[in-house]
Amino acid sequence: MPIKPKIPRPTVKRLSLYLRQLESMTAHEQQTTSSKQLGEALGLTDAQVRKDLAYFGQFGHPGIGYKVGELIAQLRKILGTDRNWNTAVVGAGNIGRALMAYGRFKNKGFEFVAVFDNNPEVVGTVIETHTVRPMKDLATLIKDRHIKLGIVAVPEEAAQQVTDELIEAGVVGILNFAPIRLDVHDAVSVNSVDFSVSLEQLAFQVSLGMTGSLDEDEN
Amino acid sequence: MPIKPKIPRPTVKRLSLYLRQLESMTAHEQQTTSSKQLGEALGLTDAQVRKDLAYFGQFGHPGIGYKVGELIAQLRKILGTDRNWNTAVVGAGNIGRALMAYGRFKNKGFEFVAVFDNNPEVVGTVIETHTVRPMKDLATLIKDRHIKLGIVAVPEEAAQQVTDELIEAGVVGILNFAPIRLDVHDAVSVNSVDFSVSLEQLAFQVSLGMTGSLDEDEN
Repeated sequence: MPIKPKIPRPTVKRLSLYLRQLESMTAHEQQTTSSKQLGEALGLTDAQVRKDLAYFGQFGHPGIGYKVGELIAQLRKILGTDRNWNTAVVGAGNIGRALMAYGRFKNKGFEFVAVFDNNPEVVGTVIETHTVRPMKDLATLIKDRHIKLGIVAVPEEAAQQVTDELIEAGVVGILNFAPIRLDVHDAVSVNSVDFSVSLEQLAFQVSLGMTGSLDEDEN
Repeated sequence: MPIKPKIPRPTVKRLSLYLRQLESMTAHEQQTTSSKQLGEALGLTDAQVRKDLAYFGQFGHPGIGYKVGELIAQLRKILGTDRNWNTAVVGAGNIGRALMAYGRFKNKGFEFVAVFDNNPEVVGTVIETHTVRPMKDLATLIKDRHIKLGIVAVPEEAAQQVTDELIEAGVVGILNFAPIRLDVHDAVSVNSVDFSVSLEQLAFQVSLGMTGSLDEDEN
């Protein structure tokens, strides 16, 4: 049975920010850092940074702080980004096509190995070297191709049914683009992309007179 | 000149999480809350919550904590979500079409009032009641239709040029879907959507054995 530490979900979201910040430090040949410095770069208190990282182990060294390279390596190992993830896209509509055309996934360890749709006019067509397969092939292909992640890019009304089929077939993580809360009976992990949040955050910045990018470093 | 408070950008991103949490409390008829309770629901220390909210004013009441309805109203006012934002989409490809088909923007105050593309075969076609206009009409339409936000949904190699044109035309905020860092000379606000971050966060959850949704409440 996998260990399930009680880690707050927002902590998991912040881990990718820590990793990116640490990687940027490495690129600038910085050897060590502190919770204060990481916090300042990411708009967090140093207490928050220490608390987040402490869920994963004791990384700090007295009098030194965090060793950047060591922290990156340990986080990557814990987080599974040193692995390869076979991924399926369900829904060959606009979102599905956009994702498959997006070239940056493969060097991050995500490989699209199947795409499914229920529209007979779309099934059999080729998108970015992948032939769209009918939904009836989903269970077999998920198993045969060792697919662990599924992307739900279907209309809202079909999203739950597709999710049920993906879970039944053995997928362990679902990236959801449908604007509904999926019921996964705590059987798998789910992350949802909500475009309205992104647009809302932009409007916040504008209203606050904050120019520049929300993702830029502060320092 | 607009006031530009020195608010950390991640604080701005967290504000939409605070708002959603508060709105969920209202829906459950909860009248008051505390930084501790908000922090627990969002995986933040109470010090972080107090620090984030303190950028926007003194909202707490001694012995009571935060009044939920009051805090929502004040945040919404500060954040401009009580306004309407005319928005343009540049790029009538997969992402642009997906966004225009996504029906949830309007009741959040975002109205798509123009869509542009440079492909002569796409210009003149109709997407979701909007006729695709050529890029040469961009400057005029942005001004005439009081468009404040622009969505960059063009290929990577065209994104900077489109951004320059949007800024020149008077847009004040840009939502970027191209996987590059746009140079906006600190003239406007930018928020970028990076699908690889979403997929990475999902892989983190799976590796950590955390089932359920990353966006679910903890309590």
